[in-house]
Amino acid sequence: MSAVEHGGNLGEARRLFPQTTQPWLDLSTGINPWPYPIPPIPAEAWTALPSPDDTRELEAVAAQCYGVPFDACIVATPGTQAAIQWLPRLFPAGSVAVLSPTYTEHARAWALAGHHVLEARRWEELESATIAVIVNPNNPDGGYFGREELLALAAEKQAKGGALILDEAFADVVPQISLASMAGTPGLIMLRSFGKFFGLAGIRLGFVLAEPSITGRLRQAMGAWAVSGESIAIGRVALADILWQNGTRASLRTARQELDADLTGAGTVLGGTDLYRLLQTPHAPALFRQLGQAGIWVRRFADHPRWLRFGLPGNAEAAERLRAVLARHHSRETHAM
Amino acid sequence: MSAVEHGGNLGEARRLFPQTTQPWLDLSTGINPWPYPIPPIPAEAWTALPSPDDTRELEAVAAQCYGVPFDACIVATPGTQAAIQWLPRLFPAGSVAVLSPTYTEHARAWALAGHHVLEARRWEELESATIAVIVNPNNPDGGYFGREELLALAAEKQAKGGALILDEAFADVVPQISLASMAGTPGLIMLRSFGKFFGLAGIRLGFVLAEPSITGRLRQAMGAWAVSGESIAIGRVALADILWQNGTRASLRTARQELDADLTGAGTVLGGTDLYRLLQTPHAPALFRQLGQAGIWVRRFADHPRWLRFGLPGNAEAAERLRAVLARHHSRETHAM
Repeated sequence: MSAVEHGGNLGEARRLFPQTTQPWLDLSTGINPWPYPIPPIPAEAWTALPSPDDTRELEAVAAQCYGVPFDACIVATPGTQAAIQWLPRLFPAGSVAVLSPTYTEHARAWALAGHHVLEARRWEELESATIAVIVNPNNPDGGYFGREELLALAAEKQAKGGALILDEAFADVVPQISLASMAGTPGLIMLRSFGKFFGLAGIRLGFVLAEPSITGRLRQAMGAWAVSGESIAIGRVALADILWQNGTRASLRTARQELDADLTGAGTVLGGTDLYRLLQTPHAPALFRQLGQAGIWVRRFADHPRWLRFGLPGNAEAAERLRAVLARHHSRETHAM
Repeated sequence: MSAVEHGGNLGEARRLFPQTTQPWLDLSTGINPWPYPIPPIPAEAWTALPSPDDTRELEAVAAQCYGVPFDACIVATPGTQAAIQWLPRLFPAGSVAVLSPTYTEHARAWALAGHHVLEARRWEELESATIAVIVNPNNPDGGYFGREELLALAAEKQAKGGALILDEAFADVVPQISLASMAGTPGLIMLRSFGKFFGLAGIRLGFVLAEPSITGRLRQAMGAWAVSGESIAIGRVALADILWQNGTRASLRTARQELDADLTGAGTVLGGTDLYRLLQTPHAPALFRQLGQAGIWVRRFADHPRWLRFGLPGNAEAAERLRAVLARHHSRETHAM
């Protein structure tokens, strides 16, 4: 298994490029650069233990936002990552196939909990395992599967005593492919991330959508007060703000199209979502270096040296900085040919 | 094992006393009613994934505050409860003795993870188990043990492949009894709570103090970004504010003495800490009812019907409301004799 790398670690950027003097522009994550404005937070959200009623209300709002039919089929977690850490503990040690390449934390967490993990390269390789993990849409390439295929896979895994873990961390920008409305289907366990689409990754909020026996066991495993009071307060407002959500989806779409236009000269845009794009070029290592020297931090992949992932620049100045490096890179590579 | 009950759940108070019209005064927890003022929170604390460097800086400040000799011996967690949920997963299923009565979540979490749990009533009953759990000072009675005894117990458990889990959730008000300066001692695993003493239970922040092999495994089990960006920002400021901490210890001491004076007429104050007091009276169920009808929510105990636990009233009005009910109760009980 490859070493786990994450976007968003500017400390790493500073260590790799100590000579860089510009303020760092972090394009290494898939986090919306236009965050939901932090609403007023009541004093008790900070001072008191969050009550079970508060958590249930947050979950009810999230259920409505995502289209989950029953509140019992959703449980709030302190970030999707916390769910990724706990889910492997809800199943006896078995075989787990993770459709790869994808977010590497799934394979790591299942292996850590004692499961046998296969990084499946094709759908067919998911068959033999008791548990299948699919990120849909996928990170980093944006690939996704249809509802019928996924439901059939969940049923097949359920029959084996396992489940399909469907990580919908980036589904907010493609709600039409989400299976959230099927939450409660036996064998189907979905993850939703709050921080990415709402641009508030720091507050640590996510949700697991599954049948009540799974949400109940996860709630019990995580224990009381898993989600912070301020996250509950912020999540309740943001998840109910449909107007903001619709406007944001449109803005992200436009920004993504502009990013694609800028990236095209530098290589092939393999795909992605409206929150990040995956570029393939044989010159990826050189481009990564040029970007780093210019204070732009993007995501590279140990196992795929020709790939770079770009988040959205948050403003015209950031977009211009990126464009300047891409243009310089393009002229150098052209010259070198 | 008794059903788990917690302080701080006002929803439960409202369901039990639907006729109560006063605003609820929550004395059911051991949380400081004078919270640390929320400092300015930088925008990135909300929007970005907390970087490993940020977490390390928080842990370094906490280490200094608690007197932990090496930063490698401390790991931040999203609340002490999260540590209570994860620690049982770091040990193979074995026998665990919890010195009781105490905070019931320890026994529950170890049992849930498949360990055999004994609720030990005496120190001697801790002997046979591989793992011992002691809350020091204890919740709800404030009892505590000496350094030599505890270190000998930790060594004994370590020799068996186990450990002593020492929950110091309330040690901030009695720092002289903390073993934090011994962090790193093999077999000694300590828990510290941020939210109780700093009055910010909502933000979910705690720490585990132990040898690096344990802190490392816990960090790995919890996964990346376990603690939120805003908790890191708040914790770094508050844990470094020694002046506030000293002043708060003095204020809590005074408030506790005043509470003791008020409680004495209603029964025997068995003990507690400067954050809560444990009252024993044969009339506890009647007093609980009278308090509830007056909108004052205190902690009762299923297994100890003569006990009630009181947190500190946060201001003169709250103290007066409590005093009025206690006086009324006293005159009724005296009259009934």
